[in-house]
Amino acid sequence: MSFFRPAIDALDGYVPGEQPDQPDIVKLNTNENAYPPSPRALDALRAVDADMLRRYPHPAAEEFRRSAAAVLDVEPSWILVGNGSDDLLTMLMRAVAAPGRAVAYPAPTYVLYRTLAAMQEAPVIETPFDDAYTLPVDALASAGAALTIVANPNSPSGTAAPFDALDTLAARLDGVLVIDEAYVAFADRSALDLVGRSERVVVLRTLSKSHGLAGLRLGFAVAQPALLAGLAKVKDSYNVDAVAARVGAAAIRDVEYTRDTVARIRDARQRLTASLTALGFRVWPSQANFVLARPADGGARTLHEGLRSRGILVRYFDEPRLADSLRITVGTEAQNQHLTATLAALLQPS
Amino acid sequence: MSFFRPAIDALDGYVPGEQPDQPDIVKLNTNENAYPPSPRALDALRAVDADMLRRYPHPAAEEFRRSAAAVLDVEPSWILVGNGSDDLLTMLMRAVAAPGRAVAYPAPTYVLYRTLAAMQEAPVIETPFDDAYTLPVDALASAGAALTIVANPNSPSGTAAPFDALDTLAARLDGVLVIDEAYVAFADRSALDLVGRSERVVVLRTLSKSHGLAGLRLGFAVAQPALLAGLAKVKDSYNVDAVAARVGAAAIRDVEYTRDTVARIRDARQRLTASLTALGFRVWPSQANFVLARPADGGARTLHEGLRSRGILVRYFDEPRLADSLRITVGTEAQNQHLTATLAALLQPS
Repeated sequence: MSFFRPAIDALDGYVPGEQPDQPDIVKLNTNENAYPPSPRALDALRAVDADMLRRYPHPAAEEFRRSAAAVLDVEPSWILVGNGSDDLLTMLMRAVAAPGRAVAYPAPTYVLYRTLAAMQEAPVIETPFDDAYTLPVDALASAGAALTIVANPNSPSGTAAPFDALDTLAARLDGVLVIDEAYVAFADRSALDLVGRSERVVVLRTLSKSHGLAGLRLGFAVAQPALLAGLAKVKDSYNVDAVAARVGAAAIRDVEYTRDTVARIRDARQRLTASLTALGFRVWPSQANFVLARPADGGARTLHEGLRSRGILVRYFDEPRLADSLRITVGTEAQNQHLTATLAALLQPS
Repeated sequence: MSFFRPAIDALDGYVPGEQPDQPDIVKLNTNENAYPPSPRALDALRAVDADMLRRYPHPAAEEFRRSAAAVLDVEPSWILVGNGSDDLLTMLMRAVAAPGRAVAYPAPTYVLYRTLAAMQEAPVIETPFDDAYTLPVDALASAGAALTIVANPNSPSGTAAPFDALDTLAARLDGVLVIDEAYVAFADRSALDLVGRSERVVVLRTLSKSHGLAGLRLGFAVAQPALLAGLAKVKDSYNVDAVAARVGAAAIRDVEYTRDTVARIRDARQRLTASLTALGFRVWPSQANFVLARPADGGARTLHEGLRSRGILVRYFDEPRLADSLRITVGTEAQNQHLTATLAALLQPS
């Protein structure tokens, strides 16, 4: 007899992107920022003393929360900090999803939504994107889910729904609407305004991509305090460590540095998109720090392996609708040129 | 209508011990180590570079896992690393507990067990300790729980069950037995040997107390790989950040430093126990870095407030069987003397 709940035995578990140990690999598979975190974040790290390690952190990561609130111009009580935005997704699922309380999201998208819903034994309603990744507002609005999640910009497509579509969706839903803005720093517009308008909207952010801090695990939710109070009940008491909170606070306050590195990545995204298009790829219009690109012959798996054997990692999803494409993180200009040159060589008829 | 599951609406949420901002307070309320972490841990912190922050951490915190395995003399595959041992308790509850799959533990104990079980809507079976905090082996063994948890040493009593009692319990249970060894570094003996003997035993450890790293959130489970595989399914992909894993690895490898600081705390515990006893307190025999102490008149709440107003924080639990006692962390020798002198003044008839 198993020690576990049947739903856990039935679960495959989420498999994250590969994190190789070799430092010389060109790593374009998990959407880390091409640039290091702000020098002020490193200064804050250097200033950590023994007593900060010795004592429990503030349960609400107050220093980080205040810094994020100031930058976003919201009250600190509208922010809940998590050990990465995955931690906040887990809180949302544990607080809201259950048998009879469905989770809906457009697909294909971040695979973790499905995994977390399965842990809660919640029904899952996947409403398909069309080929242009248009947000299926009607299908989501009529799904009757307790929890609706829209990754915007979406992964792995990189596409973003217009603000009005999200606004309409929020107005038509009865349950909670999560707008997962992990990649929004690289997009034209955030949906943060919806939080003020609607008690059911939660916007998720992370410092993993925009602030070059994937190693630290720092994300946060923005929502009205009543909604956050329910999520906080299922939060680990000390979910965010003292060092991450301190360093993250310094990073998020350095608005200028983030603006500069984001601008560089957006420029590089445009050039990468043009290069890939010239190589015959279909590239979906991206608002993120990665692109979804389909080679003309759909031979994505072969290209993925070819790149890997040449020291370049990109992401390949062996899933319906995605198995003919690659998700490629926008790297530095040098990395992107190395990638496209290598792809050109791989695509050359031998 | 609520956005949340009814079980969440019904939940009070776990309230952790106070983490005050004032640096001059004598903080004996949440069982942090009286001494700073190993100098090697601080060296490791100073050596963290920008790229470690920028990239995702290893999903299994491999560097820390290997270091812990070497120190404990087990295979790395027998270790699962968590964002504090609370994170591992959450994994255990999510993987095992459910309606119809009960959680049992002797009480009074760590209140979080009850909170986490309630989130899972699992039946809770609290088997009472007697006044000497003897482990109720028969009651636990016959409870039929899917998950049985024994904090050993127990909090807030500080008492420890003998190895043989745990061995007997493990042999008689059908479900999973968690031995929460958060405080075991300060005890005479660990139950780690049981993991090799029984596929159902999980031993939990944390670096928060023994290694002076409460601020970093680092704990781990030791169990046979099949059991850990089930728990890993409900683990956040990147639950442990790169800095914590690196610093924790350096700390756990510095066995000598830990042995030295632990010995100092055990000595101080003995003297603190003697001083409190001389002041008329009943002090339960502690194997942890804190003591449970009942003043002769049971006026613990008044003492708690009196200490607080004089800049000393200890822990007061407004719960059945505990409301007449204080849980006092063993501090430095100077802190302990300051505490006992202040208590002596508070107890003096005015």
